[in-house]
Amino acid sequence: MEMKTPAYSRTIMTEIVLPNDANALNNLRGGKILHWMDIASAIAAGKHAQAVVVTVSVDQVSFENPIKIGDVVTIEAKVTRSFNSSIETYIEVWAENLPSQNKYKCNTAYYTFVALDSNGRPKKIAPVQPESEEEQKQFEGALKRREIRLILAGRIKATEAESLKSLFETN
Amino acid sequence: MEMKTPAYSRTIMTEIVLPNDANALNNLRGGKILHWMDIASAIAAGKHAQAVVVTVSVDQVSFENPIKIGDVVTIEAKVTRSFNSSIETYIEVWAENLPSQNKYKCNTAYYTFVALDSNGRPKKIAPVQPESEEEQKQFEGALKRREIRLILAGRIKATEAESLKSLFETN
Amino acid sequence: MEMKTPAYSRTIMTEIVLPNDANALNNLRGGKILHWMDIASAIAAGKHAQAVVVTVSVDQVSFENPIKIGDVVTIEAKVTRSFNSSIETYIEVWAENLPSQNKYKCNTAYYTFVALDSNGRPKKIAPVQPESEEEQKQFEGALKRREIRLILAGRIKATEAESLKSLFETN
Amino acid sequence: MEMKTPAYSRTIMTEIVLPNDANALNNLRGGKILHWMDIASAIAAGKHAQAVVVTVSVDQVSFENPIKIGDVVTIEAKVTRSFNSSIETYIEVWAENLPSQNKYKCNTAYYTFVALDSNGRPKKIAPVQPESEEEQKQFEGALKRREIRLILAGRIKATEAESLKSLFETN
Amino acid sequence: MEMKTPAYSRTIMTEIVLPNDANALNNLRGGKILHWMDIASAIAAGKHAQAVVVTVSVDQVSFENPIKIGDVVTIEAKVTRSFNSSIETYIEVWAENLPSQNKYKCNTAYYTFVALDSNGRPKKIAPVQPESEEEQKQFEGALKRREIRLILAGRIKATEAESLKSLFETN
Amino acid sequence: MEMKTPAYSRTIMTEIVLPNDANALNNLRGGKILHWMDIASAIAAGKHAQAVVVTVSVDQVSFENPIKIGDVVTIEAKVTRSFNSSIETYIEVWAENLPSQNKYKCNTAYYTFVALDSNGRPKKIAPVQPESEEEQKQFEGALKRREIRLILAGRIKATEAESLKSLFETN
Repeated sequence: MEMKTPAYSRTIMTEIVLPNDANALNNLRGGKILHWMDIASAIAAGKHAQAVVVTVSVDQVSFENPIKIGDVVTIEAKVTRSFNSSIETYIEVWAENLPSQNKYKCNTAYYTFVALDSNGRPKKIAPVQPESEEEQKQFEGALKRREIRLILAGRIKATEAESLKSLFETN
Repeated sequence: MEMKTPAYSRTIMTEIVLPNDANALNNLRGGKILHWMDIASAIAAGKHAQAVVVTVSVDQVSFENPIKIGDVVTIEAKVTRSFNSSIETYIEVWAENLPSQNKYKCNTAYYTFVALDSNGRPKKIAPVQPESEEEQKQFEGALKRREIRLILAGRIKATEAESLKSLFETN
Repeated sequence: MEMKTPAYSRTIMTEIVLPNDANALNNLRGGKILHWMDIASAIAAGKHAQAVVVTVSVDQVSFENPIKIGDVVTIEAKVTRSFNSSIETYIEVWAENLPSQNKYKCNTAYYTFVALDSNGRPKKIAPVQPESEEEQKQFEGALKRREIRLILAGRIKATEAESLKSLFETN
Repeated sequence: MEMKTPAYSRTIMTEIVLPNDANALNNLRGGKILHWMDIASAIAAGKHAQAVVVTVSVDQVSFENPIKIGDVVTIEAKVTRSFNSSIETYIEVWAENLPSQNKYKCNTAYYTFVALDSNGRPKKIAPVQPESEEEQKQFEGALKRREIRLILAGRIKATEAESLKSLFETN
Repeated sequence: MEMKTPAYSRTIMTEIVLPNDANALNNLRGGKILHWMDIASAIAAGKHAQAVVVTVSVDQVSFENPIKIGDVVTIEAKVTRSFNSSIETYIEVWAENLPSQNKYKCNTAYYTFVALDSNGRPKKIAPVQPESEEEQKQFEGALKRREIRLILAGRIKATEAESLKSLFETN
Repeated sequence: MEMKTPAYSRTIMTEIVLPNDANALNNLRGGKILHWMDIASAIAAGKHAQAVVVTVSVDQVSFENPIKIGDVVTIEAKVTRSFNSSIETYIEVWAENLPSQNKYKCNTAYYTFVALDSNGRPKKIAPVQPESEEEQKQFEGALKRREIRLILAGRIKATEAESLKSLFETN
C-alpha cells in the first residue's frame, strides 16, 4: 500500500459567518465551527483513504477568539497519521475581517475517522509519509494523543499508556 | 447568589436525521451531533447563568454507534458545576428508530461556556447544587476535567494538576 | 393490541429563534411554529404508532404572544387518542428569554396523523390509556374535535355531529 | 381609505419538494406546507396592508393528497376580507409531477394576520373589494369563519355566533 | 410533437430576502438571485419538456439595483425557444418593499437547459409557439444568443456566427 | 495605492454535494454552483479591495460535466484586474469522487464586483499586479471581457468596442 503525504489530502474550506449561526452578541457559535471542522477533516480523511469515512472521536477543543458575523473563516485540514482503518486529522481555524484585514487564529483540533468500504466494513488505510518538520511532529504526537483517547474512552488504564507516562513523571 | 440545581437548566432537544446531514452510507455526520450538542448545552448554560454564553471548550468526544437517516435523536443537556464565570455542562445523546423502537446510546460530552453580560464582559455565575447521586459525581468530577482542559490547553503542567495525580500513580 | 399512555410518546423539542425565521419586527413567523409543531407531533405519533406517519389535519391555531429573535422555544407534544389508523396529538408551545427569565405561553394545537406501514398503507394503531385528569379530558374531547374536523372538511353535516350538538343548544 | 381588490395582493410561490422536507416514505411533511402557506399569505396580506404583518390564526387545514419528493408545489394566496387591523387570506396549494404532468390539488387554508405599523402597533387596513363571484363568496364567508375562530379561541360563546346559528338549526 | 406556448410553462417564484443571504450592507447577494433564477427557469423548462432538465449555460447577467433584507423578490421565468434537446428560458426579477410599495426591476437573464429522459439521455423537446409580440422577439433573438454562447464556449469561431455578423458590421 | 497580486486574494472553498441541491437524476443544480462561485469570488474581491463588495455582473457560464451527490466540489477564485471601483474575478470549479479519485473540471467563470465603503458609496480599488503568465493573460483579456459586458448591458455599441473589433474582422 502506497504511502501518501499530508499535502496529498490537504483540504481548505472558506465560510462567511452568517446571522443564523451567531448568538445574541453576534459571535459565531462554537458548534458551527465544530461542524465545519468535521466536514473539512472528513474530506481530507476521505481523500487519503479513498473511502467514505465516519467520525469516531474529537479531541479536546478550546476556542480562543470570538468570531464575528460577516468575518471570513478558513478551515484547513490535513491527515497526520493512520492506524489500520483509523486516521487522525489536524485542523486549523483562522478568521479574518476583510475591511480591516484583521486576521486571527481561532482554534486547532484533532478529529479521528474510520474508513469504510462500500459494504460499511472497516477498510485498511495507506500509511502517512510526513514531509515537513511540523508534519513529522504531528506524526509522532499521534501516538500520545491516541493513548489519551483510549484512556478517556475507558478502553485502557492511564497506567498502561506507555508514551504518556513521561508526561506525569516528576523526577 | 442563589444556588440552582442541574434540573433547573435541564434542556431536551429532539431532531430527525435528514439526508443533508448524512454521509454516503446514510450515517449522520459527527459534526452535526457536535453542533446540536453545542446548541442544547448553550441553552442549558444560558438558563443557569441568565445570560448569553459562549463556548470555550469541548472535551474529548467518542461516537459509539452510527445514527441512520430518519432516526430520531434526543439530546439532553444539564449543568454540572460552575467556576466564577465559566460553567460546565454534561450532554447525553440517544437515537431511536421509531418503527422498530430500537433505542441506542450514541455518545456523551462535556461542553464548557463563559457567561457574558450585555456588554460582553464575563459575568459571575450562580453555584450549582447537585441533587441526585449521579449529579454529585458529575459535580466532583468537574475539578478533574477542568485540570485536563488546562493541561491540554497548555495553561498548566501535568505535574501541577492536583486532582489528576492519583490517576497516574502506579503504587 | 397493547394500550400506551400519553407519557409514552411525549416529545420535547427546543429551538432558538433565528434571524432567518423572523419578520421585519424581529418576531418569529407563525409558519415556523406550525412547522416545528408538525415535527414534534409527528415524532410523538410515530413513537405511539411504531410507524411512519403523515399529517392529515391541523385544527384551528391561535398565536397569543409574539416570540422574539434569540428567545428559546419549547414544543411539547403528546398523543391524546387514536381512531383505527388515525391519531390525534396535543401540542403546547412556550418561549423564554433566558437573560430576563421571562417565560410565556405561545399557543396550543391539535395535529392529526395517519400511520402507514412500510407499503404506505394505513396501519392499525394501539389505543391510548390516559393517566392524569388532564389527559382524560383530552381523550374525551377528542370525539368533539373529530366531529368539527369532519364538518369543516365537508364529510358530515353539522346536524349529524352527535357530540357537538349540546354546544349549540341554547335551552 | 381606498379599497383594494384580491387580485391586487395575489401572490404565487413555487417550490420543489426536497429530500430534507420529506418523511421516510418520500412524502412532503405537512408542516412544510403550513410554513410555505404562511410565507405566501403573509406576503399577500403585507401587500394589501402596506405593512409588516404577524400571523394571528390558522383555520383548520386538511391535507388531501401526499406530495412526493421532486414534485413542484404552487402556493397561491390572496386577501379575502379585512376587519379593522386584521386581514383574512385564502390559500390554495397544488402540486405537479413535471415528467408525467400529473397535477393535483393538495389543500386550501385560511390564515389571518394583524398589520403593524413601524412601532409595532396595530394599523388600520384598507377594505377589500371582491371582483369575481368566488371572491364575493369568500368575502361573505369571512364573517362565519371569524365567528368560528372566536368560539374556538374561547372569546365568544357558540350561542353568540349570529351568522353560525343557521348551520346548526335542524328545523 | 405538439408545440407549446411560453405561457404554458410560465413559472412565478416569490421569495423574501433573509439576513443569511445578505452582505454586511444588508444587500441580497447576487449568487442567491442566480440560484433562484436557476430553480424558476428549470421548473419552466421542465414543464415545457416534460422531463428532468440540467442547466447547460447562463448568459451574461447584470445586476441593476441592490435588493434589501425584508424586500419581496418575484422571479418570473418562461421558455423562449427550443433546439432539439436544449431549451432557452428568459427570466425577469423584480423586488418590492411592501410597506412603501416601492417596486423596482433587478435584472433579466437567459438560462439554457438540456432535457434528459429517465436514463439520463438527451430527450427531444417540443417546439415553442410564441404568442405575443415580445415572445416573437425573444424567439427570434434566441438564434443570436445561441451563437454568442457557442463562440464564448469556443465551439464556433466568431466569423462563423451568421446571425451575429450584422451586429459588428460598421458599414 | 499599493498593487496586490492575484495570489494575495486567492480563495478556496470546498463543498460536498448534498441531496437538497440535486435534481431527480442526482446531479447538482447549476444554480448552486453559481451561488458558491459568487461567495468565493466575493471573498476574493473583498480581500483585494478591503471592503464590502456587491456583484454587478456574471459573464456567460457553461457547465461541462454533471456533478453527482456526495462528490466534493472545489471552487477557486482570484482577482484578475481592477477598474476604478470595480474588480473582475476568475473562478475555476473542480469536482472529485473521493472513493474512485475521479477528478474532473466543471466550469470556469468571471464575476465582477463593485467595492463599497462603509456608507455604501463606490470605493477606489488597488490595481492588480499579475505574476504568472496565465495571470498576465487574464489581466489583458479583462479589457475585452469588459467591452463584451458593456455591449451586452446596452451601455456601448458593438462598433465602439475597440479591443473586440479584431475578433470579428474577417480579413
